[in-house]
Amino acid sequence: MDWLKQAIRNLPAPNTEMGQAAAARQAELTKPAGSLGRLEELAYWLAAWQGKHPPTVVTPHVLVFAGNHGVAAKGVSAYPPEVTVQMVANFEAGGAAINALCNNIGAKLSVIPITLDRPTADFTEAPAMTKSEFAAAVAIGRDAVPRDADILLLGEMGIGNTTAAATLSRSLFGGKAEDWVGPGTGVDAAGIERKRNTVETAYQFHGGYLADPFEALRRVGGRELAAIASACLEARMQGIPVLLDGFVSCASAAVLNAIDPVALDHCQISHLSAEPGHRRLLQALDMRALLDLDMRLGEASGAAVALSILRAAIAAHTGMATFEEAGVSGAAAPD
Amino acid sequence: MDWLKQAIRNLPAPNTEMGQAAAARQAELTKPAGSLGRLEELAYWLAAWQGKHPPTVVTPHVLVFAGNHGVAAKGVSAYPPEVTVQMVANFEAGGAAINALCNNIGAKLSVIPITLDRPTADFTEAPAMTKSEFAAAVAIGRDAVPRDADILLLGEMGIGNTTAAATLSRSLFGGKAEDWVGPGTGVDAAGIERKRNTVETAYQFHGGYLADPFEALRRVGGRELAAIASACLEARMQGIPVLLDGFVSCASAAVLNAIDPVALDHCQISHLSAEPGHRRLLQALDMRALLDLDMRLGEASGAAVALSILRAAIAAHTGMATFEEAGVSGAAAPD
Repeated sequence: MDWLKQAIRNLPAPNTEMGQAAAARQAELTKPAGSLGRLEELAYWLAAWQGKHPPTVVTPHVLVFAGNHGVAAKGVSAYPPEVTVQMVANFEAGGAAINALCNNIGAKLSVIPITLDRPTADFTEAPAMTKSEFAAAVAIGRDAVPRDADILLLGEMGIGNTTAAATLSRSLFGGKAEDWVGPGTGVDAAGIERKRNTVETAYQFHGGYLADPFEALRRVGGRELAAIASACLEARMQGIPVLLDGFVSCASAAVLNAIDPVALDHCQISHLSAEPGHRRLLQALDMRALLDLDMRLGEASGAAVALSILRAAIAAHTGMATFEEAGVSGAAAPD
Repeated sequence: MDWLKQAIRNLPAPNTEMGQAAAARQAELTKPAGSLGRLEELAYWLAAWQGKHPPTVVTPHVLVFAGNHGVAAKGVSAYPPEVTVQMVANFEAGGAAINALCNNIGAKLSVIPITLDRPTADFTEAPAMTKSEFAAAVAIGRDAVPRDADILLLGEMGIGNTTAAATLSRSLFGGKAEDWVGPGTGVDAAGIERKRNTVETAYQFHGGYLADPFEALRRVGGRELAAIASACLEARMQGIPVLLDGFVSCASAAVLNAIDPVALDHCQISHLSAEPGHRRLLQALDMRALLDLDMRLGEASGAAVALSILRAAIAAHTGMATFEEAGVSGAAAPD
């Protein structure tokens, strides 16, 4: 936990000079000012957090961390726990949604299973991870960040992990268990009730320890959640902007926000998940998703779709002519 | 107008067999049912309207129709009318946003200026187009649809055309002038007031004639609006699904919806424009946009960005493994 605590006290600031260079170019391009909306904001954001102008999206890299959860024994998922291992094999064989979406957009994919044969402890009865297990997951996340990426996409796989994300979100941002619990991969009403009870039981069990965000991550998170939080923080240190995926990825990264509200300024939220806790989480983070396509798969699938929005932003930013180059009259001065 | 009236009485239905083939494949792919949200719906929609399975997005074609508007003399735009010609030259030279976005996504672009040297009449004083001018614009739109496109993107350019779109929308769907008027390319409060007065004056001038949607298109539309409506209808006849762009494109196509509520079932709304009338228009059409990125440029720019969402839908639909192929356990039966 020492690295986490030290890193978050030394967060790099954005490069406003490069951001201003992007804004200055936007003002000269052949379109009414602001008419490309969030595409213009993304050009600024990428320049500021990559520290270069023009910004690029040529070496996108997707990290999918996978973990197993002792709490899955509580019947909180529509799928049996062995599906985590099966889906990791599917990722490695190239058959999952994230493979197809990475191929589509030209992104590298690294899948990082974290000791799947050793699930975390059932966090209704004990901390999910020991301190050394937590430190190991954090180190794996940190070390997985590729130095040559110009944008990092973070996602996850882990049967039971929306229950971990719900418990973690409740610990960070308050509310009731039912505010953060939803169907996940598709449990029925009885399953949602089991999830709600599980979140409540865990919250009561750990009590005041959850007031420390990193300690909450260790106690009610999971290995893939810890790895996402640390990869997100390491990307900040390395000058690599991040696309977060859905509910689980955002809940993991939200740990950083809970410690310092500017800690996720180098991140965009790819999409608003259909998992209902995500909307509440984005409100708590005061962040707006790029897409709203009713997706709820995880695996960084929403991030891989949102990457195309960044590509469009870069294409317009770098490919358009200026008013002067094109001989187009500018906007009339106000009367 | 004969072709329009005949075509809309003979709208082809979707190919539900191909749609069902897409739905059946979705159910077998290695993900929880429905977890790709609108990407799954888009695979169904493309298959049904292309009449083939698997559907494709390999020959996307963007049509940008341009027209000039007599009503621009009323001071309803932030830009002078000569910008329409200048921007068409910019399209042809490859310097506009739509060029950069088409290059980015691999879409063909055809720019179709319609007698820019002869603006429509100021529709506060006369019908925008004579019957023969209207028929000519309709024929241009119809004939511009490329037979080899598997998806058609429709957009426009025309200084003053958000005022035409607002007047047309009021004619089709009621409300007050101010419900449909916004800043367009960026007019100030006085400009918005001029637009509101212009819409109101035109609406009163044409009176009961506006009850006929095609007649409304002729009287208070414009050449590029007429061309978009007819291209949209011709695409339906040819079995080519359509991505509509923003406020002006949707108002043009809305003429078809006003005659037959199923007439836009082969269309998706690319994005929710920042132009405020667009939200109201989508409510009237009962259609939901794919993107919400605060864009308000026109030129089919929103459609070109949304095309990447269709590409992602196809990639997942065709590239993923089935549960059986991957050896992944399916969802547990409900208790």
